[in-house]
Amino acid sequence: MHIEDRGYQFADGVYEVIAIRAGKLVDEAPHLARLRRSLGELRIDGALADAPLKVVIREVIRRNGVVNGTVYLQITRGSAPRDHGFPKAARPVLVVTSRRSRALDPKIAEEGISVITIPDIRWQRCDIKTVSLTANVLGKQQAREAGAYEAWMVDADGHVTEGASTNAWIVTADNLVVTHASDNAILNGVTRQALIAIIRREGYGFAERPFTVAEAKAAREAFLTSTTADLTPVVAIDGQPVANGVPGLLSQKLRADYLAYIEEST
Amino acid sequence: MHIEDRGYQFADGVYEVIAIRAGKLVDEAPHLARLRRSLGELRIDGALADAPLKVVIREVIRRNGVVNGTVYLQITRGSAPRDHGFPKAARPVLVVTSRRSRALDPKIAEEGISVITIPDIRWQRCDIKTVSLTANVLGKQQAREAGAYEAWMVDADGHVTEGASTNAWIVTADNLVVTHASDNAILNGVTRQALIAIIRREGYGFAERPFTVAEAKAAREAFLTSTTADLTPVVAIDGQPVANGVPGLLSQKLRADYLAYIEEST
Repeated sequence: MHIEDRGYQFADGVYEVIAIRAGKLVDEAPHLARLRRSLGELRIDGALADAPLKVVIREVIRRNGVVNGTVYLQITRGSAPRDHGFPKAARPVLVVTSRRSRALDPKIAEEGISVITIPDIRWQRCDIKTVSLTANVLGKQQAREAGAYEAWMVDADGHVTEGASTNAWIVTADNLVVTHASDNAILNGVTRQALIAIIRREGYGFAERPFTVAEAKAAREAFLTSTTADLTPVVAIDGQPVANGVPGLLSQKLRADYLAYIEEST
Repeated sequence: MHIEDRGYQFADGVYEVIAIRAGKLVDEAPHLARLRRSLGELRIDGALADAPLKVVIREVIRRNGVVNGTVYLQITRGSAPRDHGFPKAARPVLVVTSRRSRALDPKIAEEGISVITIPDIRWQRCDIKTVSLTANVLGKQQAREAGAYEAWMVDADGHVTEGASTNAWIVTADNLVVTHASDNAILNGVTRQALIAIIRREGYGFAERPFTVAEAKAAREAFLTSTTADLTPVVAIDGQPVANGVPGLLSQKLRADYLAYIEEST
């Protein structure tokens, strides 16, 4: 693409990652709805409409022969001589790529993963899925170097907002499933939304509210969700085991429910 | 460049804009020093060293026949299959472009410009000159739509940090020149640094400290600085005139001193 693409010079663009399982797109509709919302929040007008976009997505998947993997969509404001304000003449640039990948190793879900906690230094519009991911990159790298899978970000009040590329959840001592509300501090994950529907359908106690790092470390269970990680149990936070350090029963149940939901819906 | 360039997908890169006046680079050394610092903060290793980079910069300027204008440098972490953490094999990607442009219309400096104030919603490492500029883009556009030249960003404590692409300054009733300290909340502008040296040399009262919007609106003078705007007087904030609504005497004096500095140093 052009070196003056505003996605490259200003992070002036948005994206989505959609899972492909057994040749079918998982939750395509909410992903595309969120893409439209992100475009609207950045006031990027003139992007390809859903109907032709869906054709492009399918063609890219087909040509790459992807049966299990992901499709990545990115839309930027377009290219124009560098100037911060919106260009008058630019037209949005669309990139669609697709890649094969195996589902997360089942051993990871069986054994669970560990997370570290780091300060949430990101901007105040994390609800928009922009390519402005510098802080997420640094957080994920910090986690990797600490031997952890993910970094949970902690706001100025000591509350966990979300992970660098996943939503964060705990199960409290009284079996309440808790995750941060979908305000400007987090990205409202599509897997998060699907899981909330499952939790409600199954009748589990649920609260959308902030939780502290201390509360997470004292939780009965913890887990994270994302398009590529599905629901993955968290068994250690900052090196301390969560409960007895193995995936929780409710986490395992919810993971099975979520995988069944994917299977049914695709 | 590659669609999986991490600058494009993660805003995982840094940049500099250096002015060219009468065929000479203005303050090249501090720009390159800041570039190295930005690369260091993002831990982007292996970028072209200063000596060959300076050769590339000059060649790009020469081939584009730029005598007055700017040169733009961008270095990203390189391209790699999309994954938040640092890739093992990627090599930094360098983009250098140069463009002719006239110095800011002298009328703008004579008449001054207006700014609006908006919440500073950016991340907490604005000291790193990354391409993660989504909030700056939105702020600059908001200013433009309000008929203003710049948006001054206001933190949670009510203090002005800086503009979307410029540093913010006031002159208090007792003739103290005030600008935000160069901490994580602002980019330490090269023009800002040059002007501080001039202020000290000339013996003006000076303080690096936060100032509120109310203090700015009640100030004797206000101005902004940047590589492309030099020192430009601010004569209105949120539609209210600063003092009597014309460029202040000290601002004009400092602007003249700065332009003389450029002339001498290039």
